[in-house]
Amino acid sequence: MPYIKLEDHLPGVTGLLEFSRKTSEPLRELTQLLLRGPSTLTEAEREWIATLVSHKNKCVYCATSHAAAADAFLGEHHTTQTIRSDYATAPISEKMKALLTIASQVQESGKSVTQVAVDQAKQAGATDLEIHDTVLIAALFCLYNRYVDGLATIAPTDENYYEAMAKRLKENGYHRPAQGYDHLKK
Amino acid sequence: MPYIKLEDHLPGVTGLLEFSRKTSEPLRELTQLLLRGPSTLTEAEREWIATLVSHKNKCVYCATSHAAAADAFLGEHHTTQTIRSDYATAPISEKMKALLTIASQVQESGKSVTQVAVDQAKQAGATDLEIHDTVLIAALFCLYNRYVDGLATIAPTDENYYEAMAKRLKENGYHRPAQGYDHLKK
Repeated sequence: MPYIKLEDHLPGVTGLLEFSRKTSEPLRELTQLLLRGPSTLTEAEREWIATLVSHKNKCVYCATSHAAAADAFLGEHHTTQTIRSDYATAPISEKMKALLTIASQVQESGKSVTQVAVDQAKQAGATDLEIHDTVLIAALFCLYNRYVDGLATIAPTDENYYEAMAKRLKENGYHRPAQGYDHLKK
Repeated sequence: MPYIKLEDHLPGVTGLLEFSRKTSEPLRELTQLLLRGPSTLTEAEREWIATLVSHKNKCVYCATSHAAAADAFLGEHHTTQTIRSDYATAPISEKMKALLTIASQVQESGKSVTQVAVDQAKQAGATDLEIHDTVLIAALFCLYNRYVDGLATIAPTDENYYEAMAKRLKENGYHRPAQGYDHLKK
């Protein structure tokens, strides 16, 4: 049971974003810019950062949603699954591995990010902007994971929920759906 | 030395917000709404949440800035100082102590927030919205602290820097200064 009164048909972050529409606007906008805005990182690569941080924060709702979103862009499950279990062995670029190391360090604490990890990312070709965005995406999911679990929202157990969510996140990004959420009421 | 190229005259978060003006807009807007928007919590009370979380995350730049901002609203240093060292003994309301307990738990992890802490806050008169805002402010500073320290920005050691910052945060809130930051160049 969530710690505050939220709409029953809106699990996870969706109930929170509707509970506080004012703050959800800039939060959605920031997420849209970071995960869908122009970038030299693909949408899937940015969703991996969100997934890995959420996974390490044990936020089931966020980790499952963003893994599903990454998979929707990729058309397969294997890569994201490997990133969650051990990204060093995943079939991804050295640059992406180095950025995921930085994201993992951010998940622990800002103070955990090392010069060695940053140097490795730069040697693998990461730009200052890619390093900046990696840190900010990782920090943003440290916010979301705490928001979602700190208010004890519900994480659905039905896989179909996350597939439908991933489809929306791929097609519409992080904007509020124009039709709202009433169609999800049972 | 910061991990990415930032303007020398802009320490802490200010260099980051100028490095990425696009993402800084919604981030500033979210912060302004949460810390300065209409609320049953005072500005100082909301700055205490920011201060305590930043202090626990050992983010010197954020903890010092937001403590100074709280002090600017209060006109004294003692209360904020006591909140940083041991908020249970601070001369603040029982409701505020209960909300700071929730904020401390959010700093650790979303999963650390307990039903007991939420019940205590409600018994002390906290509303759902106050609990929501406490969790989201605490989560927002988990983002900021990671952003600021994850990119190894500089925290000035000169107290005057933070006093000037606090004056700006009290008078202008979290909006970008209309004149930018060039006047801070040495």
